[in-house]
Amino acid sequence: MEMNPINKQSDDCDPDRPAHPGVFPSGEAGKSERNPAERRVDFPVSVVLPAGGTGERTGLQTPKQFCSFLGRQLISYTIQAFERVSWIQTIVVVVAKENTDLMTDIIQRFQHRKVRVVPGGSTRHRSICNGVLALGSGQDEEGGSTAERPKVVIIHDAVRPFVEEDFLYKIAMAAKEQGAAGAIRPLVSTVIATTSEGYLDHSLERAKYRASEMPQGFTYDVIHQAYQSCTESDFEFGTECLHLALQYCGTNAKLIEGPPTLWKVTYKRDLAAAESIIKEALSRTACVITGGSAQAVTLAEALQKAVGALEMELDAIPDLMGDNARYLVTEWNFIHVSISGSCLSEVEALLTALEAANRAILHPLVVILVHLSTSDELSISGRMAEPAAITDLASAAKLRNIFVYGVLLQQSKDTDCWERSVLRVAEITSALIRERSSALVGQLLQA
Amino acid sequence: MEMNPINKQSDDCDPDRPAHPGVFPSGEAGKSERNPAERRVDFPVSVVLPAGGTGERTGLQTPKQFCSFLGRQLISYTIQAFERVSWIQTIVVVVAKENTDLMTDIIQRFQHRKVRVVPGGSTRHRSICNGVLALGSGQDEEGGSTAERPKVVIIHDAVRPFVEEDFLYKIAMAAKEQGAAGAIRPLVSTVIATTSEGYLDHSLERAKYRASEMPQGFTYDVIHQAYQSCTESDFEFGTECLHLALQYCGTNAKLIEGPPTLWKVTYKRDLAAAESIIKEALSRTACVITGGSAQAVTLAEALQKAVGALEMELDAIPDLMGDNARYLVTEWNFIHVSISGSCLSEVEALLTALEAANRAILHPLVVILVHLSTSDELSISGRMAEPAAITDLASAAKLRNIFVYGVLLQQSKDTDCWERSVLRVAEITSALIRERSSALVGQLLQA
Repeated sequence: MEMNPINKQSDDCDPDRPAHPGVFPSGEAGKSERNPAERRVDFPVSVVLPAGGTGERTGLQTPKQFCSFLGRQLISYTIQAFERVSWIQTIVVVVAKENTDLMTDIIQRFQHRKVRVVPGGSTRHRSICNGVLALGSGQDEEGGSTAERPKVVIIHDAVRPFVEEDFLYKIAMAAKEQGAAGAIRPLVSTVIATTSEGYLDHSLERAKYRASEMPQGFTYDVIHQAYQSCTESDFEFGTECLHLALQYCGTNAKLIEGPPTLWKVTYKRDLAAAESIIKEALSRTACVITGGSAQAVTLAEALQKAVGALEMELDAIPDLMGDNARYLVTEWNFIHVSISGSCLSEVEALLTALEAANRAILHPLVVILVHLSTSDELSISGRMAEPAAITDLASAAKLRNIFVYGVLLQQSKDTDCWERSVLRVAEITSALIRERSSALVGQLLQA
Repeated sequence: MEMNPINKQSDDCDPDRPAHPGVFPSGEAGKSERNPAERRVDFPVSVVLPAGGTGERTGLQTPKQFCSFLGRQLISYTIQAFERVSWIQTIVVVVAKENTDLMTDIIQRFQHRKVRVVPGGSTRHRSICNGVLALGSGQDEEGGSTAERPKVVIIHDAVRPFVEEDFLYKIAMAAKEQGAAGAIRPLVSTVIATTSEGYLDHSLERAKYRASEMPQGFTYDVIHQAYQSCTESDFEFGTECLHLALQYCGTNAKLIEGPPTLWKVTYKRDLAAAESIIKEALSRTACVITGGSAQAVTLAEALQKAVGALEMELDAIPDLMGDNARYLVTEWNFIHVSISGSCLSEVEALLTALEAANRAILHPLVVILVHLSTSDELSISGRMAEPAAITDLASAAKLRNIFVYGVLLQQSKDTDCWERSVLRVAEITSALIRERSSALVGQLLQA
């Protein structure tokens, strides 16, 4: 996709959580204004995520919260968005009985730690009610005790994966103060009233109305009382929690305009959009490991110039020793440069270190071996360790969710020729990092 | 993106227009019910496409209708959607003065033939009004005469590229009958009224309201009179054409529920979604050219089995002679199989034929050379025409929007080993076709 200029967004990962990394894109609207030090809520907050939907509108048989991109289910991205917020205690995921095992697998595989699974009801309100009651009981499914009863409950959708800490903070604070709070967005289309025969009756004045979105927040007491008091008809046909709070607790919710990233994954195309947002977030930075040789450092500098135009930030380091070990635990892709001859043992060490740092649990990680050949020989087989050995290494790494690719670069004394080759390396490596294609793992590409 | 099962959708291209091909995805909602023979309108219909927006909401500096994916601007995809409908006469595109040259370039480059460019006004209604008046004048910008005055004018957005003939037919027929017709969709979110202090006042009953979308249709007389009668305030602040038709002509528009594909590209993520829909539509079919050799035919049959699981349809043909020339003019990607030795002259002939058929004007076209090596030698250089020659060929083809890639496949007598290799070829070729990466053009991949 060609879109210029693209605003570079800051890498929004939390440096305090090396054992559970996961870059998360900040809003399309721009940089997050969050400052965690100032904006930590000091009362218990928990989350209810109803995830019992059937996904009819995506045109897929799999409910959309369980559709995957980059090897992970949508609901896991949403859980991650809450788990990385330090002041959120518990995330209650409400799923249909038939999806309980799948949900348990997802929690184990992606090492989610704050999640409790609760069985869903026959409607959205019954499911949310189950989640709220589970938070109040202080017991999990097996009867074990859990965190204290929350002061505020945030209700969200499993299919809105890009909610940000900043906005959750606003919702939580407003909910505590007012009893209820909800996200709103401007109306995208004009809303019209229709006659019973399917003709235009009148159109609404757009400025007076808003779309009600998620997340919403309630004090535990308000949402609990609302569900205690509401009717069977509300449980059956109602959709709007804010409405229940108003009707049964007299609580007028505070409405807060949310960012466009709160959008709901509804259609198949929305899955592609979500995937592209995640891919972009994962492709902002790469770390070039030069091994310290002068030639590799020169190449790294040339690449830094070339990728500048391609909207990627490159750091160059000699190795991952000492302070540079920090690159292992935050969101970097790797470009490993080697000069004439095998580099496989170094690459194996890099892969082992990345695995030890738990770097590829949430997203596939890209490692590109760039082999700089200084010989004049044109045959590929002489330039790099046996291609078959690299293919094997890449196949093994792929099982651990690390995508390894190779790029062959011929040193040239002709300046024009060399600059063209470096530009090709920049294009190829940034395409490999951005596209993260599993079918091309282990390939040796020619710059 | 992993989504199973994906409904295969029929290739929705028009066989009557070989000189101007262009696959167009049928709706996400499923197969189009259109039957062009039955559903041809017999009165003149033209289109006004207001395209003066500034694109603020995408977070991009380029207005979104001029953002590109797969090398083409969004507005060209929308124009294509109308141009391929045989009963549509003229498409008036209304653009801001500063984008007139860009629009003219787009029309030339993508060989649009039904388009007239008209300068925009300061608001949406003024722009649409300019477009309607231009249709009435029967003259283009240079004073040349154009098609007759339309009976029905369809108004659409430049940023809704996936409108289908089927739905345009319904809008045109209803507009002729009722004077006005418009697309509606169910509300995605609850609509709420807010107090002036930002609190919930009440929520609307969702079943009574709809979102008003595009396209809309009007008889020329109704839309013309509406704009003649409306006030400066309507021109300045109004958004809804259906409302003007009701207020100034007493015409209650017929409302027709449209498919989800009518959605409006609003945010940056929507461009990614649109790109993925186009890429999927372009990746449904590939044609394997075997040259007739038994080995290549066996490989083609094995590939057909393997790609079945990958949701792609493969046809195998010996060459493009006679009746098989039809593959050149409709939407096929190509996999050219060669056995031991150079195949470059045949590939050059294929590229020349594709260029003569105008196949790569609207979308990049993929041609993959699969080289089946029967020798036991492992060195790559011996297996295929000099890699450098293929790189040169691919670079030249890329300038003509044809993306050439190579895949090397080693014949094996070991059945397991052979089946694994064929599966790898299937995975690699379908990934190349789907991802259409320009950075990887000219690469030789190893199956």
